[in-house]
Amino acid sequence: VRDLTDRAGPRLAGSTGDTRAVAWALETMRALGLARVRAEPARVPVWRRGPETGEVTAPRPHTLSLTALGGSVGTLPGGLEAEVLEVPSLEALAARGSRVRGRIVFFNRRMERSADGRSYGPSARIRATGASLAARHGAVGMLMRSAGTSRARFPHTGSMRYEPGVPRIPAAALANPDADLLERLGHEGPVRVRFRLGCQSAGEAESANVVGEIEGRERPGEIVLLGAHLDSWDLGTGALDDGAGCAIVLEAARLIAATAPRPRRTVRVVLFANEEGGLSGAFAYARAHAAELASHVAALEADSGTGRPRGLGYNAGPGAARILARVRPVLVPLGAASLDRMRFGGADLLPLLPAGVPLLGVRQDMTRYFDYHHSADDTYDKIDPRALDAAAAAVAVVAYALAESEEVLPRIPEGRRKLPDWAR
Amino acid sequence: VRDLTDRAGPRLAGSTGDTRAVAWALETMRALGLARVRAEPARVPVWRRGPETGEVTAPRPHTLSLTALGGSVGTLPGGLEAEVLEVPSLEALAARGSRVRGRIVFFNRRMERSADGRSYGPSARIRATGASLAARHGAVGMLMRSAGTSRARFPHTGSMRYEPGVPRIPAAALANPDADLLERLGHEGPVRVRFRLGCQSAGEAESANVVGEIEGRERPGEIVLLGAHLDSWDLGTGALDDGAGCAIVLEAARLIAATAPRPRRTVRVVLFANEEGGLSGAFAYARAHAAELASHVAALEADSGTGRPRGLGYNAGPGAARILARVRPVLVPLGAASLDRMRFGGADLLPLLPAGVPLLGVRQDMTRYFDYHHSADDTYDKIDPRALDAAAAAVAVVAYALAESEEVLPRIPEGRRKLPDWAR
Repeated sequence: VRDLTDRAGPRLAGSTGDTRAVAWALETMRALGLARVRAEPARVPVWRRGPETGEVTAPRPHTLSLTALGGSVGTLPGGLEAEVLEVPSLEALAARGSRVRGRIVFFNRRMERSADGRSYGPSARIRATGASLAARHGAVGMLMRSAGTSRARFPHTGSMRYEPGVPRIPAAALANPDADLLERLGHEGPVRVRFRLGCQSAGEAESANVVGEIEGRERPGEIVLLGAHLDSWDLGTGALDDGAGCAIVLEAARLIAATAPRPRRTVRVVLFANEEGGLSGAFAYARAHAAELASHVAALEADSGTGRPRGLGYNAGPGAARILARVRPVLVPLGAASLDRMRFGGADLLPLLPAGVPLLGVRQDMTRYFDYHHSADDTYDKIDPRALDAAAAAVAVVAYALAESEEVLPRIPEGRRKLPDWAR
Repeated sequence: VRDLTDRAGPRLAGSTGDTRAVAWALETMRALGLARVRAEPARVPVWRRGPETGEVTAPRPHTLSLTALGGSVGTLPGGLEAEVLEVPSLEALAARGSRVRGRIVFFNRRMERSADGRSYGPSARIRATGASLAARHGAVGMLMRSAGTSRARFPHTGSMRYEPGVPRIPAAALANPDADLLERLGHEGPVRVRFRLGCQSAGEAESANVVGEIEGRERPGEIVLLGAHLDSWDLGTGALDDGAGCAIVLEAARLIAATAPRPRRTVRVVLFANEEGGLSGAFAYARAHAAELASHVAALEADSGTGRPRGLGYNAGPGAARILARVRPVLVPLGAASLDRMRFGGADLLPLLPAGVPLLGVRQDMTRYFDYHHSADDTYDKIDPRALDAAAAAVAVVAYALAESEEVLPRIPEGRRKLPDWAR
């Protein structure tokens, strides 16, 4: 993680950092002795942040710490100023009716801290869809309380999407202390905010998924995929998201390669391009490897930061639990005791879902993950080396078992292969 | 604290926030029923931050999170770029000889976390004097690892001073993670940094010390001063530094005013102007009240944040400990068990030192204080209301005792009335 973050720095898809990261991944996989190391092309959208400022203009001036959501349009150069309308949720917005028109809608949902990060989903939905929902009701701008659990004064970015046919309004996240301030000022009376975002989309660029393998000793055409994503947001250096995941799958591959015998099947490490801005790399992989997906016996992604392993999640056909239970005796000493179903699977694995590829993930302790996630504070010093080692060990164990076991996991049944809306 | 920070926001001396803070303090003291509430004029220097950016340019590009030290000159508009020379301390700099010339000196001293904050002094000395020391050896710029204990990616500002006759070079503090990065890159080979500071000094402005009293019932001309400072740095809203101190002394005054009988002597609350940028308010107070300082029987400052009370510190003449020990039975249940000598006294009390006024301070737990101090993250949400209540109670007890006791503290002897260098 140190090497990746110090060499590439922030690596937003299509940026020079992204290019450095691809070079780093190729070099690192080769140094680890992986086979058939290559960059597989992926077109990625380019979005640049630019300068951004925010302030309360009434009842009294206050500076706001905010940042554009990824994919947002910018404001006019003079900024956007309007009265704020605070709502707690997407659901509550519609009830405000005509009062939304001309306003900056402020989605004020607090994330709760938890080991499984379950509070992230609803905030991520606000981030992804809140702007267009607000615009449909006539809002001129969208602000949200950051999807983050820290009270540190960092705004947390993340991707959003505009609905076709709905006006594209600027959208930004407020640091938690600044959302607190807006909330308190709202109790006094009307609050006006001005913000200025210099961000813009700038076409597409070429990036790449970086791929390397440990060739199977008996069934090299059967593949266990270990994935993480190489890109990061631009604010921090993506040490946790997803430098940690890259390190976990690379270290797992190193451990497997150092173990005799080599497993029966091929273990393929894929560091995906542009997870953050729309899964471009993941979809490019699924297209390029369409003919081979039937031979993907399982896929596991690491994209949960630096926390200790807590258990194993899976999305597969009936009977998977019985097979996976056999690996538990090795996982329990690592702290990874739970074994439970995932609704989908890691974001980069979703394009494998229509082919029914069994999806897995080592669940990690995410108690602190969303303190740093998508913020300028996602930097190398947040890495917990011992926990990361344990997570890599857990992934290595699971991957080795999947690649070695005579029996393979049952594939996801036809009826459960539909991609979630947000990933289409 | 909430009211002050939400109403005034950041309140750098001479800013509009400072003006709002003076109005707030007058209004609040009047609402508390203090007597003779007034603003006593104080001229303050004006310094404005402006835009600031930093980046590593070699061996590879990296964005740096940094902020100008208060009082620094700006760079030229294109910024300042040079190779970095890292040193651990002021003492180590001189040994580098001719290698300092043309460099940006990077003082890389880490603060250690502790309840008494003792690691702050050496970093504050680097901050105050490092730029001129580096410039004397031919450096073109000064960077320092922030005087802060958090690994959060906030730079911590603070005041610095230029030595007369030495070139004035731009000076800035790096966030701890960014100092870590410079340190790591330094192990690879030469590192170049470019930074741009838009800060500048802009003359002087009128501010004020805000003063209010509880008149003594028997000896109204004898004064126990309770001080805190009303100004703050511009990055955060100064909730801990020194909104907390303002709240502590105002709450202590409220408690004393609500206690029968009123104490024998006058308790005077002073919220000082411009502590951060050179103690202008404190010196103005000492000048304006020169004739009265002999009647100041004691002065106590609260400028240590929101932590629980740990004890009582004092700087007074021989015999003070015996007198102060009498108040310990009331302080111990609040957690303020220690009683020990301070070398000087709170910064705003230093101008009272030449008059021998006994100086006191309730020592608070500063374990977390320097996580936030002087950074954008010094905001209201960091306040611990219960700890703040306990600190206010401790100050109230001490102040009441000093104002009521027949016996007064012995004054600081002549030989110990000299101001420290940095406060002259």
